[in-house]
Amino acid sequence: MNDLYDVINRRRDTRREFTGAPIAPEVLERVLSAAHCAPSVGMSQPWDFVLVRSPRTLEAFAAHVGTERDAFGATLSGERAQTFDRIKVEGIRESGLGIVVGYDPTRGGPHVLGRHAIADAGLYSAVCAIQNLWLAATAEGLGVGWVSFYREEFLRSLVGLPEHVRPVAWLCVGHVSELPEVPDLERYGWRHRSPLASVLHEETYGVPVA
Amino acid sequence: MNDLYDVINRRRDTRREFTGAPIAPEVLERVLSAAHCAPSVGMSQPWDFVLVRSPRTLEAFAAHVGTERDAFGATLSGERAQTFDRIKVEGIRESGLGIVVGYDPTRGGPHVLGRHAIADAGLYSAVCAIQNLWLAATAEGLGVGWVSFYREEFLRSLVGLPEHVRPVAWLCVGHVSELPEVPDLERYGWRHRSPLASVLHEETYGVPVA
Repeated sequence: MNDLYDVINRRRDTRREFTGAPIAPEVLERVLSAAHCAPSVGMSQPWDFVLVRSPRTLEAFAAHVGTERDAFGATLSGERAQTFDRIKVEGIRESGLGIVVGYDPTRGGPHVLGRHAIADAGLYSAVCAIQNLWLAATAEGLGVGWVSFYREEFLRSLVGLPEHVRPVAWLCVGHVSELPEVPDLERYGWRHRSPLASVLHEETYGVPVA
Repeated sequence: MNDLYDVINRRRDTRREFTGAPIAPEVLERVLSAAHCAPSVGMSQPWDFVLVRSPRTLEAFAAHVGTERDAFGATLSGERAQTFDRIKVEGIRESGLGIVVGYDPTRGGPHVLGRHAIADAGLYSAVCAIQNLWLAATAEGLGVGWVSFYREEFLRSLVGLPEHVRPVAWLCVGHVSELPEVPDLERYGWRHRSPLASVLHEETYGVPVA
């Protein structure tokens, strides 16, 4: 059941299915270890993980996300507004665990190998860790929901990230009743997945792969 | 052999071990499909993959990367300079295949769900696709080396990315003689991996996990 391709296909962005059951410590450790095993530019391992379970913090973040959901909703009209109305964008309280992922550019010493020309390479490393975490959680039967309806400054202040650490994600992580076969945004008619061929190019952008 | 955790642990950033043997088309398709299966903000699937095999393009990119390697090397002195001198930073010609990953912020329509507050959320999606690709390649017995010694404008022009598509990575992908157990940067004394506990925090940044 933990075959890589199977896990990649089962992985979903979870909002509705959290049960709130606590995660066994050894399971959480495997999931976080998988994240910490991710590739990183110059082996800088520039990520941080803040584990949030305090109901007060979960509640405060959910309220903030609610405000940002409304702000996005207000930019929509007609069919888009109606479709968005049906979509749940977070399971912050229901999951019972938020993992805040931070990016620390000071990690890795004064000369990070591979980052002098591409400053964002460190940020990319933190996202590789997130994807490892997500797949490991899926293999463990957990759901993960990446919430991005928030202002970085709010989240930074909520969990006390210092100025030099950038918040990259809030991940809702928890046991789930199921992982749906079809992604929520497709089930609710927001968007449909594109075919692979539409993003492939041969030698030069715009030349389809034979 | 394709157990997720096993793949996560075997995955390496490859430079030295490419054999140059061609990749079977069905294998490459599985690897690219895994990338295309990644999570994306608002299901925007904002990635592009340009498959580069032309020896002329590989050569031109390798020459550019050589220049950037020298530029980074020139910022080092003493032990750092000597250690860096021994480190190979790319296998562009030897792998025989470069996959240029681009990020297209126009994908996903005028209202990308989940991106109004965090503009970089789309960029993060492209990196999730890279990590899926990397793990799938590892499961297939291929090596992947993420090269970041380049200027984005050079790479954009080399493979003809339009102005609105940002180059995110050059990935060397190919068959390998082996995947070393210890990462190159550790084997050559550049850096050592940190313990998981050093990046974990409980409720608030700076509070160690019990």
